[in-house]
Amino acid sequence: MGSDAPETVAAIVAAHRAATMTPAQTIARCYQRIRDHNDPAVFISLRDEKDALAEAEALAAKDANALPLLGVPVAVKDNIDVQGMATTAACPAFSYVPAQDSTAVAKLRAAGAIIIGKTNLDQFATGLVGVRSPYGIPVNPVRSDLVPGGSSSGSAVAVSAGLVPLALGTDTAGSGRVPAMLNNIVGLKPSLGLISNAGLVPACRTLDCISVFSLTVDDAMTALTAMAGPDGADPYSRDRPLGSVSAVPEKLRLGVPRNGQLIFFGDRASENAYGEALERWIQLGATLVEFDLEPFYETARLLYEGPWVAERYLVIRDLLASSPDSIHPVTREITTAGVRLTAADTFAALYRLQALRRVAERSFANFDAMVLPTAPTAYSTAQVLANPIELNSRLGTYTNFVNLLDLCGLALPAAMRADGIPFGITLLASAGHDAKLASIGRVFHADTKLKMGAKGLTQPPLASLPAAASGDEITIAVVGAHLSGMALNGELQVLGARLLEATTTAPDYKLYALDTTPPKPGMLRVGAGAGSSIKLELWTLSAAAFGKFVAAIPPPLGIGTIRLADGRGVKGFVVEPAAINGARDISSFGGWRAFMAEKAGCNPHGEEALLRRLEP
Amino acid sequence: MGSDAPETVAAIVAAHRAATMTPAQTIARCYQRIRDHNDPAVFISLRDEKDALAEAEALAAKDANALPLLGVPVAVKDNIDVQGMATTAACPAFSYVPAQDSTAVAKLRAAGAIIIGKTNLDQFATGLVGVRSPYGIPVNPVRSDLVPGGSSSGSAVAVSAGLVPLALGTDTAGSGRVPAMLNNIVGLKPSLGLISNAGLVPACRTLDCISVFSLTVDDAMTALTAMAGPDGADPYSRDRPLGSVSAVPEKLRLGVPRNGQLIFFGDRASENAYGEALERWIQLGATLVEFDLEPFYETARLLYEGPWVAERYLVIRDLLASSPDSIHPVTREITTAGVRLTAADTFAALYRLQALRRVAERSFANFDAMVLPTAPTAYSTAQVLANPIELNSRLGTYTNFVNLLDLCGLALPAAMRADGIPFGITLLASAGHDAKLASIGRVFHADTKLKMGAKGLTQPPLASLPAAASGDEITIAVVGAHLSGMALNGELQVLGARLLEATTTAPDYKLYALDTTPPKPGMLRVGAGAGSSIKLELWTLSAAAFGKFVAAIPPPLGIGTIRLADGRGVKGFVVEPAAINGARDISSFGGWRAFMAEKAGCNPHGEEALLRRLEP
Repeated sequence: MGSDAPETVAAIVAAHRAATMTPAQTIARCYQRIRDHNDPAVFISLRDEKDALAEAEALAAKDANALPLLGVPVAVKDNIDVQGMATTAACPAFSYVPAQDSTAVAKLRAAGAIIIGKTNLDQFATGLVGVRSPYGIPVNPVRSDLVPGGSSSGSAVAVSAGLVPLALGTDTAGSGRVPAMLNNIVGLKPSLGLISNAGLVPACRTLDCISVFSLTVDDAMTALTAMAGPDGADPYSRDRPLGSVSAVPEKLRLGVPRNGQLIFFGDRASENAYGEALERWIQLGATLVEFDLEPFYETARLLYEGPWVAERYLVIRDLLASSPDSIHPVTREITTAGVRLTAADTFAALYRLQALRRVAERSFANFDAMVLPTAPTAYSTAQVLANPIELNSRLGTYTNFVNLLDLCGLALPAAMRADGIPFGITLLASAGHDAKLASIGRVFHADTKLKMGAKGLTQPPLASLPAAASGDEITIAVVGAHLSGMALNGELQVLGARLLEATTTAPDYKLYALDTTPPKPGMLRVGAGAGSSIKLELWTLSAAAFGKFVAAIPPPLGIGTIRLADGRGVKGFVVEPAAINGARDISSFGGWRAFMAEKAGCNPHGEEALLRRLEP
Repeated sequence: MGSDAPETVAAIVAAHRAATMTPAQTIARCYQRIRDHNDPAVFISLRDEKDALAEAEALAAKDANALPLLGVPVAVKDNIDVQGMATTAACPAFSYVPAQDSTAVAKLRAAGAIIIGKTNLDQFATGLVGVRSPYGIPVNPVRSDLVPGGSSSGSAVAVSAGLVPLALGTDTAGSGRVPAMLNNIVGLKPSLGLISNAGLVPACRTLDCISVFSLTVDDAMTALTAMAGPDGADPYSRDRPLGSVSAVPEKLRLGVPRNGQLIFFGDRASENAYGEALERWIQLGATLVEFDLEPFYETARLLYEGPWVAERYLVIRDLLASSPDSIHPVTREITTAGVRLTAADTFAALYRLQALRRVAERSFANFDAMVLPTAPTAYSTAQVLANPIELNSRLGTYTNFVNLLDLCGLALPAAMRADGIPFGITLLASAGHDAKLASIGRVFHADTKLKMGAKGLTQPPLASLPAAASGDEITIAVVGAHLSGMALNGELQVLGARLLEATTTAPDYKLYALDTTPPKPGMLRVGAGAGSSIKLELWTLSAAAFGKFVAAIPPPLGIGTIRLADGRGVKGFVVEPAAINGARDISSFGGWRAFMAEKAGCNPHGEEALLRRLEP
């Protein structure tokens, strides 16, 4: 595998668009790699190669720029329906051939992805180890004695081994995160309901979500963006804006557990790697904020001791009755515990969970994201087979509570230990902050300069941030006291606005220094080409925040439409003409920052810092 | 009880503010009426009169205008904590004396209310009849042979009989609505979590809410406004804006069940009264929209056949074990059914409920509110005692599904039948639309001209609507195509904006006719007193809707601050001066509507309709 061949989703799509490689060539390469890799435990079923190639060739008739996953080969965990391919959930007796794609798969295909196979898993997605399957144990390609992690074992291995750049997993208690760490790749566990679960074999229906494995954070976000959205076919799907990757918050605050609360089961190398990851965050400018991890541990105990196992029992109740031997003995042991639980137990646990959610909300109010180890340690396959339930449970120490608390998570490679075992961290935030986690996490992952997956691939440079507001956001041009570092910039920050770019107006404007406190300019449109180009910044914020911002603007300023140098029209500050009588025309400064700098008797400042923040 | 004495909350507060009556006089009157009424089954405990009088007298030291419930006597259902008074839940063996007020009671007191006693209920709020209490059966003051309705029997009777103008009930499956109908009063069942449940003896913790009984809708909203808000002491409380009473939507759409789906158990008088209520809605300008009631019936069956009874069981599990005979036999029979239910049953029911919620959401997307009978019929105490479970269940036909589906409800008197039995309707909407239901419901109730409660009180004229945006809303002044009935007014309607008032600017502006499609004016501030007063309308909308509205305004228009004739400054349309070169100055018309009417060669139109809508 040449290191200059396109390996990430972004690189593959770019190559397809530039026609330096065709989707069919990519698909053929994918199948060749699967043959070369030669681990029969990774895929439960492979799609017929000719079908996949034909689908790839058919993409030529489509608009390449409209397909964010143009010709990207994707592996799908075998508890997610792909039309015409058996869904087994790693239990042959359970197998059925779905008549239609799951919503997530249908959306990937609509975005140009090519499904190439169904991957192995811990049966019924019950497990974090990847060894509980009649289809064998996928070999961990990073260190072959380690478990691959689960339950999404095959999907994680397929990405790590370079078989596919993108794979779907699922995540109920960590199945989309633990395997990401053990395979040195990215695992994105979205907010519940963001991706429809229609066409997914449930584990715990109230906690399940489809997750994404990829080599980079940006690739995972591309896939998530393609799949997210409400779906009438899944009553648990939700309609919430996803947002897009943006700059890291200027004053990034990260939550870390109180001293002594973390558990590594004696694994000093993991403990050290976690400490080094925190050091890296500090180097990146983050402030670490301590929080109490105990309520999160309590939530995790609720999952294991509480009623949710009855959800797993519901899924296979009929099979347990008709053919108990068709179920993996460990899975059977765990699941049948669900029979004995009562409705009263269930409501009592739901009450406690509701209280714990409120505690968690109060914690999250203090920082942008929580940083935890993805798993406290790693185990070999031999160790797990000898002690299958306890070691599995340990791996979920930092993942089990997440879905119960309605959090989103992003598992990131953090270090390759001296012993060759990968260590990872997970960022967590309350539901709906998926894009924020990605915005923070991509910078961390890039900073590690770690190779990606098991094949020694070098990380690509971080892509520039898109200079556009996302669907639900509104862009505003600021020209005066709201510029970065100026007197009123905090008003934007408080509203959660983020800086998109610095640019200039069309040469249609005059800028005046108004007699206000704090000093502000007024910008007036005088006619096409009849004025000056004025420097400004574009910020973006939610519709509600924009509404509040506009409502708070005092006269004589208001919000109109500003014409930019490149012809775009954006909302921005305008001034009532009645207010500029007698005001000084400062248009010749080309912008408020230069005027204020001259007024202060020094050179224009802040430009450099500003530009630095606009860099990826 | 003289008909000109202040009887409603609004009238009592106004009398206290105007000092035509003191709070102490009102409290003394209240206790005298309780003595005169002489029904020992209404209250389980009464507060010491001297204490209540002392508290009323202490109000004199406070700012009368800051207390929306200044000196209003309030009765509290005896499953809601009042500091120092026993909470019995109508089960003496369960009784305890709370060390502090429930949050709802504390907020009522902070608003100036005086708690005067704890009212009777169906034990543990289990029932819709009011006969399941060891403290007796409160006599229905409207027709003494009828059950009082429950479970909030004493509270509803206390309001209907004129003992108090305001009382708290609770509502899990209809306990705040059925007694409202049977007592010819208003019953407001808020959205779940809007009023904190801290200090409430649970029935079903996931479904319970505190409800309000009053003589008028406006009184109920005053109390709800005083009590609403998030509360750290109740993990189920939610932080959502309540809004305020406003005008009825211009194109009011009301959902009614498909032909043949309604059940009245043979009660033709109820069926006719419901039909007449729908006729009244049509007369009031509503459009009736049919929907399928079956999913709502299915939800109601889930409540009775499903796992939620295990929540009731949890509340009294210890008492059932230690002293089963202390529990009312009917309550015991119902509640012990909760023992046998499993966790698997529970999750299966929760899944089905989630699907039914989505179905309900799709129904509610088609109309502003649903209109149903509050109860299908009424029963006598003798009938219910002879058949206690089945008849109780029938009374919940139209109430049982409401809390499961996270709806808010408003029970309104609709008719006094020829046989002297009151009939009522309930408006339902999805959670968060409490203020909308009140806005619609108050107009209906006023239109019935029904006497209030059991004492023949005449309804007061509807109060004028407050001409102000509520906390989360932003007011915008429109001067042109967005005026009522003009070309772009629909843009405001779509965003959920509501009209506050018609007024004029300060005489500081000029109005120009721009060359746009559709035709629009541009308004420019020329200086204090240097221009004309221009007619405009004030609309209010949410911050997010305002943000979207502003973002969509094309140049040369923008949003600045408009000075009104009365000195207020509001956000409103301004125009870039560069755009009015050559435009016709139409300031002399005094407004866009007059100009457009002249242009069309006819008289100004629409003013009359507009003013009509601004009337209460």
